[in-house]
Amino acid sequence: MIERTVFFLSDQTGVTAETLGHSLMTQFDNHNFRQVTLPFIDSDDKAREAVRRIAEADANDEHRPLIFSTLVQPEFRNIVKEANGLHLDIFDVFLEPLENELGQQSAHESGRAHGMSDIDAYMKRIEATNFALANDDGGVSRNYEMADVILVGVSRSGKTPTCLYLALQYGVYAANYPLTEEDFESGNLPEFLRNQNDKLFGLMITPERLRQIRKERRAMGKYSSAQQVRYEIRESEKIFKRYGIPYVDTTEFSIEEIASRILDSTGVERRVRP
Amino acid sequence: MIERTVFFLSDQTGVTAETLGHSLMTQFDNHNFRQVTLPFIDSDDKAREAVRRIAEADANDEHRPLIFSTLVQPEFRNIVKEANGLHLDIFDVFLEPLENELGQQSAHESGRAHGMSDIDAYMKRIEATNFALANDDGGVSRNYEMADVILVGVSRSGKTPTCLYLALQYGVYAANYPLTEEDFESGNLPEFLRNQNDKLFGLMITPERLRQIRKERRAMGKYSSAQQVRYEIRESEKIFKRYGIPYVDTTEFSIEEIASRILDSTGVERRVRP
Repeated sequence: MIERTVFFLSDQTGVTAETLGHSLMTQFDNHNFRQVTLPFIDSDDKAREAVRRIAEADANDEHRPLIFSTLVQPEFRNIVKEANGLHLDIFDVFLEPLENELGQQSAHESGRAHGMSDIDAYMKRIEATNFALANDDGGVSRNYEMADVILVGVSRSGKTPTCLYLALQYGVYAANYPLTEEDFESGNLPEFLRNQNDKLFGLMITPERLRQIRKERRAMGKYSSAQQVRYEIRESEKIFKRYGIPYVDTTEFSIEEIASRILDSTGVERRVRP
Repeated sequence: MIERTVFFLSDQTGVTAETLGHSLMTQFDNHNFRQVTLPFIDSDDKAREAVRRIAEADANDEHRPLIFSTLVQPEFRNIVKEANGLHLDIFDVFLEPLENELGQQSAHESGRAHGMSDIDAYMKRIEATNFALANDDGGVSRNYEMADVILVGVSRSGKTPTCLYLALQYGVYAANYPLTEEDFESGNLPEFLRNQNDKLFGLMITPERLRQIRKERRAMGKYSSAQQVRYEIRESEKIFKRYGIPYVDTTEFSIEEIASRILDSTGVERRVRP
């Protein structure tokens, strides 16, 4: 493996530079990338500190660093460009074609992405998060009539993190209901769920993976036994089919992917955009 | 305001295209962008469906659409390029310089970002989320010795969503403790927090904003009264100063920004990278 240091420079959080850089880096698998995020570069001093950090890596590493940058203000970009490395600057590349297309000079102001410019979006995400927490695990409040989507699945199939991600990322109201022993035995869903049938979405998982996850929590006992895990998965799939509930196998997917697939499959609209 | 349709095309979730596009679009404020994400373009049919959707927008809108694309596989990229619009293709622009720099052809395989390639990262994020939930709001478990950071602040200052975001995005173990009437009266922190003084991080907020947020929850009564809100904020700031707790004013910040500022200020390492 070839070692490389990768810098993500931003006058904001660095999330954009990280996301872009990560997408690209995954395409090069004989490299080991040491990743350093330098956010909030909003002064000459901080820009010079970034140059110093990059020079340090350049001196220590065999190869020069990669630098993904989303600095908006020209004065800080110019300082940072003094650093030796491969500069991949998002604004350099895309702002000019966008300015030409839109017939407008860009603002060249930082703090516009991920900013509180939209207080309404912040409130929506917070409210959606509170909704997810209150309606987690078949929770007491069960405001299912307010839900955009209700995730259904066995314990540890990924319902809670997916609901929270849908809330935080997209402001979507996601509740979740863990299928119970009673549901498996009767083969029925409780009435309060059947009333919301068009909002239900199932999470499926392979027995091997579910066992692995459950063992992290409780190594021994019925909960993580091969037999129990197979039984629950078989019965949950029967219930999904019986009620015509769409479902996705989460085994190979990250939380982002599960969330995106749910939105894509259900057509639920994002209430906010990242 | 000029209306434009913006497409985010991806063979994966579309998060990278959205993040990049959003960063750029915020620089153009006399436009109203109608945003459409078309994820999981992993077949000729889906690529052609994307072309159809773009052509539809092109026919209906006054201006041609903008197309942010992160399609990795050349066959689908070629189909999509037939669509009329301004194409901003991340792989087009950045893969070649990266290939030259790294001396390696890129894999041109989709599904590498946000994928389950790293099961370990998935588990870490899930575990961090479970930790945040168990240690939310001074919760019963109080495994503060396991925490990377413990957020302290008044009710509704943004502790819970920030902890969940730190967990889901970075795998960081974040607990939170809401300051109580008792803490304000004594001016002391409880002993179980004082033992973890180097992990504490405070969230501050302006009285106006806190009142606005609390009123959404309970319009009337002491909880959202101007006097109570001012009192709590004043006392919490005294506590932060008394114990030398670093803090950030969250009023103007999004959840992403608060989380990034906490990592930047504390030096807490990300356990996973997005």
